[in-house]
Amino acid sequence: MNPKIGVIMGSSSDWETMKHACDILEELELDYEKKVVSAHRTPDLMFEYAEEARARGIQVIIAGAGGAAHLPGMVAAKTTLPVIGVPVQSRALNGLDSLLSIVQMPGGVPVATVAIGKAGATNAGLLAAQILSITDVEIAEKLETRRQAMKMKAIESTGDLSE
Amino acid sequence: MNPKIGVIMGSSSDWETMKHACDILEELELDYEKKVVSAHRTPDLMFEYAEEARARGIQVIIAGAGGAAHLPGMVAAKTTLPVIGVPVQSRALNGLDSLLSIVQMPGGVPVATVAIGKAGATNAGLLAAQILSITDVEIAEKLETRRQAMKMKAIESTGDLSE
Amino acid sequence: MNPKIGVIMGSSSDWETMKHACDILEELELDYEKKVVSAHRTPDLMFEYAEEARARGIQVIIAGAGGAAHLPGMVAAKTTLPVIGVPVQSRALNGLDSLLSIVQMPGGVPVATVAIGKAGATNAGLLAAQILSITDVEIAEKLETRRQAMKMKAIESTGDLSE
Amino acid sequence: MNPKIGVIMGSSSDWETMKHACDILEELELDYEKKVVSAHRTPDLMFEYAEEARARGIQVIIAGAGGAAHLPGMVAAKTTLPVIGVPVQSRALNGLDSLLSIVQMPGGVPVATVAIGKAGATNAGLLAAQILSITDVEIAEKLETRRQAMKMKAIESTGDLSE
Amino acid sequence: MNPKIGVIMGSSSDWETMKHACDILEELELDYEKKVVSAHRTPDLMFEYAEEARARGIQVIIAGAGGAAHLPGMVAAKTTLPVIGVPVQSRALNGLDSLLSIVQMPGGVPVATVAIGKAGATNAGLLAAQILSITDVEIAEKLETRRQAMKMKAIESTGDLSE
Amino acid sequence: MNPKIGVIMGSSSDWETMKHACDILEELELDYEKKVVSAHRTPDLMFEYAEEARARGIQVIIAGAGGAAHLPGMVAAKTTLPVIGVPVQSRALNGLDSLLSIVQMPGGVPVATVAIGKAGATNAGLLAAQILSITDVEIAEKLETRRQAMKMKAIESTGDLSE
Amino acid sequence: MNPKIGVIMGSSSDWETMKHACDILEELELDYEKKVVSAHRTPDLMFEYAEEARARGIQVIIAGAGGAAHLPGMVAAKTTLPVIGVPVQSRALNGLDSLLSIVQMPGGVPVATVAIGKAGATNAGLLAAQILSITDVEIAEKLETRRQAMKMKAIESTGDLSE
Amino acid sequence: MNPKIGVIMGSSSDWETMKHACDILEELELDYEKKVVSAHRTPDLMFEYAEEARARGIQVIIAGAGGAAHLPGMVAAKTTLPVIGVPVQSRALNGLDSLLSIVQMPGGVPVATVAIGKAGATNAGLLAAQILSITDVEIAEKLETRRQAMKMKAIESTGDLSE
Repeated sequence: MNPKIGVIMGSSSDWETMKHACDILEELELDYEKKVVSAHRTPDLMFEYAEEARARGIQVIIAGAGGAAHLPGMVAAKTTLPVIGVPVQSRALNGLDSLLSIVQMPGGVPVATVAIGKAGATNAGLLAAQILSITDVEIAEKLETRRQAMKMKAIESTGDLSE
Repeated sequence: MNPKIGVIMGSSSDWETMKHACDILEELELDYEKKVVSAHRTPDLMFEYAEEARARGIQVIIAGAGGAAHLPGMVAAKTTLPVIGVPVQSRALNGLDSLLSIVQMPGGVPVATVAIGKAGATNAGLLAAQILSITDVEIAEKLETRRQAMKMKAIESTGDLSE
Repeated sequence: MNPKIGVIMGSSSDWETMKHACDILEELELDYEKKVVSAHRTPDLMFEYAEEARARGIQVIIAGAGGAAHLPGMVAAKTTLPVIGVPVQSRALNGLDSLLSIVQMPGGVPVATVAIGKAGATNAGLLAAQILSITDVEIAEKLETRRQAMKMKAIESTGDLSE
Repeated sequence: MNPKIGVIMGSSSDWETMKHACDILEELELDYEKKVVSAHRTPDLMFEYAEEARARGIQVIIAGAGGAAHLPGMVAAKTTLPVIGVPVQSRALNGLDSLLSIVQMPGGVPVATVAIGKAGATNAGLLAAQILSITDVEIAEKLETRRQAMKMKAIESTGDLSE
Repeated sequence: MNPKIGVIMGSSSDWETMKHACDILEELELDYEKKVVSAHRTPDLMFEYAEEARARGIQVIIAGAGGAAHLPGMVAAKTTLPVIGVPVQSRALNGLDSLLSIVQMPGGVPVATVAIGKAGATNAGLLAAQILSITDVEIAEKLETRRQAMKMKAIESTGDLSE
Repeated sequence: MNPKIGVIMGSSSDWETMKHACDILEELELDYEKKVVSAHRTPDLMFEYAEEARARGIQVIIAGAGGAAHLPGMVAAKTTLPVIGVPVQSRALNGLDSLLSIVQMPGGVPVATVAIGKAGATNAGLLAAQILSITDVEIAEKLETRRQAMKMKAIESTGDLSE
Repeated sequence: MNPKIGVIMGSSSDWETMKHACDILEELELDYEKKVVSAHRTPDLMFEYAEEARARGIQVIIAGAGGAAHLPGMVAAKTTLPVIGVPVQSRALNGLDSLLSIVQMPGGVPVATVAIGKAGATNAGLLAAQILSITDVEIAEKLETRRQAMKMKAIESTGDLSE
Repeated sequence: MNPKIGVIMGSSSDWETMKHACDILEELELDYEKKVVSAHRTPDLMFEYAEEARARGIQVIIAGAGGAAHLPGMVAAKTTLPVIGVPVQSRALNGLDSLLSIVQMPGGVPVATVAIGKAGATNAGLLAAQILSITDVEIAEKLETRRQAMKMKAIESTGDLSE
């Protein structure tokens, strides 16, 4: 059976960021595939990937890219599956270019954009899980448990505030 | 039966923007509820809304706010349902403050952020539908049909380019 | 015979800006075609347009778009013809999003980016002409003449500085 | 007796910044408590903290957070005590996101915002003391003395300008 | 008896914004004085005002200014009373210059900064009241009542969301 | 005798802004000349103007331009007279582009940059006068008188703060 | 015979960036010359270079500069050849100043702007080649081959995504 | 005899930047004094310094500061001598806050602003010299000689472009 989540990125150098999305999916035991799909270097592959995704059983696509980040928006233009866009931090403009290129989509073709960099990638994984949790109680429970653990860890961390 | 989509906003002045989300939901014949829920003026109501949403049958929450826009992120902190954040265009900073306040969430609590203003609200409605379309073929077909219509309208609009 | 210059834009609402590119081409008596080609609404048409451009005799493509402006970069990914990108002024962020989405292309796929809005569109027309002027003395002369006229007009405009 | 000043922060990683607020409070011999209270990980604790603060004798709350920094504003929404917000410097956007998320509060719920990072944390401690100094002559005198020392140190530092 | 709150601004053109601070003070029945005190046009008056404020019985200073907004910070340098800075929206840069000029104070001299423009002025009035409420139960109650009214108004405003 | 101050601008459309510099010069009864000198449309004239300025008796040059504003910096590269740069407010980016293009000169070739728009133009006139006042007591006195008048006007304007 | 491509830069410190343009030209076996031509330090040389370029057989000029980057625009003002501008990353503002100084040219004098830094320099080399490819089949083929290689490398790089 | 140029800065930590202004003054053999004068820590000293400068024989003041940089503008408010403002690069916002706090002065009180950081400090020294060169032929000649040397060095640096 095919995985329900596709994690794609514009370049293997985005892996440093995007692995945090995959870490979450592993942690939650969700099947996924990962692939370099570049809007500018492999445009046809990108269209093919987006076009066939739903039929292949993919339910959510996570797409990360930096700079003039066209991957999430172009994938979104070729599928009606939810596409989550992760703005990878760019060298000169710190990811502000990535963020605006991904989030400022015109009416008609949404991209679910998350934060720049590592936090965003982590949240992309969680958002995918939250979307699947709508109809999957088991995932919902795992997410709830994760929230509880996060809460406990936050409360305990007051102990780390030494002078 | 309760609606599957909750559309909330920080102030009735956000309606000018958020109605575009509702327009899409009407167009696609998806049940929704709409409500003013303010992070800063009705914080307890906000928590209650978020906390009870899943049990009430809500599947996706669309939350719009401007300026120091805390509504989407705080709702997201109180539910594991997918929350879509719409940055409403603010007076002084044109919505850049709204956008950053919504999208730059820390790892652990995602908000699916869309574009600033009207286009973002429209896309919030569509993104909610796309999420539901994962397990609802009918919605998927409606979205596909809408895409086709959008494509046709784009192609025909070349005729509008007069000199 | 096919025109040498293709002027495309993401929406008919971009015409207000992009007509200034066409005005220049008319003024210089250069053949061109104009068309709405949308990255997000007509992605396949966009790829087709870019893919066939060189064989059809197109020598320069001028592409205008606003917001998360993916048209120029995606066309550039599908052809090795020079692509000139015009950032159309967007509502919320005044075209800063359009500019960054167009200019910040990754190494490998260049877009020749011009200024935001009307001045940029005018310059896109002129840049296309300047590119063609490399091997076309007549165009080079027309451009030189235009520069002289511009200079004269600037000099004379001192007379307009009244108190 | 309970302390008059509560120093809270969204994460133990904010301590690096927030300790500078505590340093000032120690220097001025003002009682305070410090705690990790996260808007997104411990939302209920946050509300509880804010709600009970005045009754517990807290007079000023200093809240530090980074990125989509919702802690100061949400605490402010749940108390009418003065809340001082410290924008912690974020990774990608250098604290501009933290600053705008904290300062751009809607009319009705103020947050007293200080500078990004260390200088802001230092000033948060001082601002709390200045607020208490309104009705506490001893604190007012300590602050005056500190200003004098600061002035002397500035004047003497001309000696450090060697070539 | 002298008023406890001083509202000053760099120019009479700032009144359009700063009157919203005064409106709040009137509403809460707090005595205040208002004055044009310009950092750049009346620097000596500014120093005199700041220097004498505490002795005159002033307890909180609200200072509004735009552009290279030096008034709040310079007043803060001459008193240890809490100074609230209101960034007035500037013509070219929409108040971003005002905000940064006010909030980015060096360690040692805090300014309690609020939002750009009208919302900020309103909140400056409220913040002054919240500061005074620490030792004045009556003000604390008025603020609580205001919050309740604000909450009710927010809840009722759902009725305004018509299609 | 030639005037001591040259006021130049890139386009007659900059006059709307630059006339405020001339108003000051008129007010202070300083001789000046005004001229459209465009970096991009009349580059040779610009070089000639800068090159001959000192010999012609010009002592200070005021240069206004907008967008990619190269006039002040290029004139500064061709003379060692002080050059004052006025960033004219641009359409899309509100003069931020003008400001950065003028102020961020490399080490070796300074431009004395003033504020964006009208206030900057006014200050350019005053700065020119202040420079000349170093060796001209009469101008120094006029400037002092102007400052006094400004101060009086500021003080009196408190009367304009009506509710 | 003279080279067809001129690569110029404002300072030898720009070479670190601009060598990536030259690397591409070497790779594609295109003749070029490289030279330090500074807008601010050698303005006359710059004008001479631009003025004589076409007669010397130059067909495309690549100009890199940082900060208040006037070189590309001023060269463009003195020739009707296509000028490609490379914004070199600046110290304080990360190249945003360089980008705006280069791209925001007024109508009449275009500069074909590419991305900030290394990626932009690489793309400047490729854009020059793409321009020459209009009338040179051999270059067009080399570019096509390069694109194919780039595509293959992208596809293979999925193998680099290890956990 | 007193020096003609006063170099002041808000903190000894600004010396790292401001020494580049002094280096130029040394190189051109211009007498100057240097001093820490802090707007926020030594406000009275600052006013005294500005007020007495002209009578003491100072002709140009160079003032450097970072963050909410009030020193140049406040000094300018207390003297009609030309004041050159150097925006020192700040930690979080890279000097954008320093730049806007210095350059965006209201009409009436100009500050001659130069670039952020080292280049700006160098140019502050040169601008002071250029101002004095108006009536001092010797300085004018030194500046001309420096320009020639700079030009020669630029031309020769082409030799440094190795591959």
